[in-house]
Amino acid sequence: MRVAIVGLGLMGGSLGLALRQHVSNHVVGFDLDGAEASVALERGCVDAVASSLAEACGAADLVVVATPVSAITGVIEAVLAAAPAATITDIGSTKGHVVAAVSGAGRSRFVGGHPICGSEAHGAMHARAELFQGATWFLTPSVESDAARLTQLHGMVSSVGARPVVIDAAAHDSIVALTSHFPHVLANVLATQVAATDVNGHSPLHSVGGSFRDMTRVAGANPAIWIDIFLDNRDAILSAVEDAQAQLGTVADALRSGDEAFLATWIATAAAARSEALAQAHRTAPADLHELLASVPDRPGALSSIAQALSAAGINIEEFSLSHISPERGGEVRIIVAGEDNATRAVELLLADGCMATHAPIIDGAGGEQ
Amino acid sequence: MRVAIVGLGLMGGSLGLALRQHVSNHVVGFDLDGAEASVALERGCVDAVASSLAEACGAADLVVVATPVSAITGVIEAVLAAAPAATITDIGSTKGHVVAAVSGAGRSRFVGGHPICGSEAHGAMHARAELFQGATWFLTPSVESDAARLTQLHGMVSSVGARPVVIDAAAHDSIVALTSHFPHVLANVLATQVAATDVNGHSPLHSVGGSFRDMTRVAGANPAIWIDIFLDNRDAILSAVEDAQAQLGTVADALRSGDEAFLATWIATAAAARSEALAQAHRTAPADLHELLASVPDRPGALSSIAQALSAAGINIEEFSLSHISPERGGEVRIIVAGEDNATRAVELLLADGCMATHAPIIDGAGGEQ
Repeated sequence: MRVAIVGLGLMGGSLGLALRQHVSNHVVGFDLDGAEASVALERGCVDAVASSLAEACGAADLVVVATPVSAITGVIEAVLAAAPAATITDIGSTKGHVVAAVSGAGRSRFVGGHPICGSEAHGAMHARAELFQGATWFLTPSVESDAARLTQLHGMVSSVGARPVVIDAAAHDSIVALTSHFPHVLANVLATQVAATDVNGHSPLHSVGGSFRDMTRVAGANPAIWIDIFLDNRDAILSAVEDAQAQLGTVADALRSGDEAFLATWIATAAAARSEALAQAHRTAPADLHELLASVPDRPGALSSIAQALSAAGINIEEFSLSHISPERGGEVRIIVAGEDNATRAVELLLADGCMATHAPIIDGAGGEQ
Repeated sequence: MRVAIVGLGLMGGSLGLALRQHVSNHVVGFDLDGAEASVALERGCVDAVASSLAEACGAADLVVVATPVSAITGVIEAVLAAAPAATITDIGSTKGHVVAAVSGAGRSRFVGGHPICGSEAHGAMHARAELFQGATWFLTPSVESDAARLTQLHGMVSSVGARPVVIDAAAHDSIVALTSHFPHVLANVLATQVAATDVNGHSPLHSVGGSFRDMTRVAGANPAIWIDIFLDNRDAILSAVEDAQAQLGTVADALRSGDEAFLATWIATAAAARSEALAQAHRTAPADLHELLASVPDRPGALSSIAQALSAAGINIEEFSLSHISPERGGEVRIIVAGEDNATRAVELLLADGCMATHAPIIDGAGGEQ
């Protein structure tokens, strides 16, 4: 298959690497930024770099538009003209707007796409062939999309190790609004609210705990990208915002009336949702995931010593985080592993390494902080 | 000083360890759970374990109530009766309710307290003398509190390395509502909202990204503790919830009207708040913190190899997290270090170790995920 990739950033570059693992694919790339294109070529993301969009697409069976969101619709129109026989897809994070913008005659050849890879890195320099392995890759055909072209794309997505999920564009946008865009809104709400509040001359921002820091990790994310995303997917995001306002109202009522039963059910539902999402991400049953907490002294090499001990024992670390709360206090490590045996063994190793450690099943709920 | 500690969990145990580093202190502990008391004694958190509250407090100059929130007010009354001359404090996470509950005659001897340590671990087993080093420790005297007793507590707090901050109980409760309790509310709101939504038969919970997982880390936190906290501090939490509803309304208006200027300012404010909070936590200037992103292959020992390389170069890791997104795909590591030189050197080491890596100043804002 002759594939053209327009936009050679992290996603376009990674897709090129993955497609080139199959010898029958030939990948030509194009990027307005010549330096980015050179990195992609050097790293083996493409067989060749074209000097124009038309040159890249002219002989392609399939064109993948991997540009920033704001450029997608314009580039698709240009590609439809430059590649009169090719199947065209994109990998933008919103779909309704893109699918609607494709003009009449081209609609049969276009199928929207969106791989859920969740990387924060940027650029072909970070490209990895494995990026799509096991990832959900949404495909959003319109009613006019040609069935054979959808099948062709389905095959391409599978060939790079992703899981194709065919879905209506509007449903796609509702899902990503909830799972990604709306969390970004909440992170911004929390960060700005705490920053804006002064309590008798004390700034709450100066005494935040780990929960605030975790919940604002994506606060203030790149405005050049996020203003576009928020506006492109505004309807679905608005619906999530309105649901949140309603739920906050219900919670406020429960607080006012001291409704312990409501709070208990609400917290239990949240705990179940968290463990279900974690289990899905790690492809295991919720009951199988265990969370370890360990206190580590603030000495050089403490972290590498822990990582080495677990690695030597063949214990796979699903997630790992260190909060180095203060230079004097040392830190607290959270590790998620699959399997109770692994959790028990990991705690033994950490204790032997001089760290206080315990573990509990994720399904029992988070510890929180007081 | 003869100190009695009632409640020998993580906090009570750590306080005992810290106080006993000064030879002039003698610490007696009591816990309703005999096993927990034994662990505390074994780990050197106390000089002796008493068999009753009265025995623990009888000869004390200072009694620290370190029980769960729901037991605090009852225990304070019992301590006031059992220790007729001692100064009494507690370490509960809400203060208005506790201070108000102390009965008339005892009010001169009682000063509320709350160290902000943010640990998720539980039990004397995790106790560490360093827990309070550099931590803010709020003291909330009432107008009836004896000034000499406040001075005595101020000295005790400083002696364990914490930073005493004297503040009105209501102001304290507003601060922790915003910085800890309200983030827990938002985490529960997000988790339950995503779990409750079905989009054309697809469960959004099955395609969440890293932002959702970060933001729901404290979702579903221990209901036995958190129902009490939410209700004890309901007024301040309600105020935060109402502010959030209002802000969500403003954001919704901006989305509806496509107000890019509002969104840009809002995102920039959130970015500044995040970097300010991080810088405060790490005692450095916001401009000094750098975030590294590195892609790590899924091979055994990849994590320990990174940690070792940085440790050998003497680069202090302020925060470290690994999202092991899928078993096939390897993971992405986020590392925060102080100082641009350290960041540059760390990237060189990671590249030499075969990981793709970049760094950027935190103050430039988060990358987010698409």
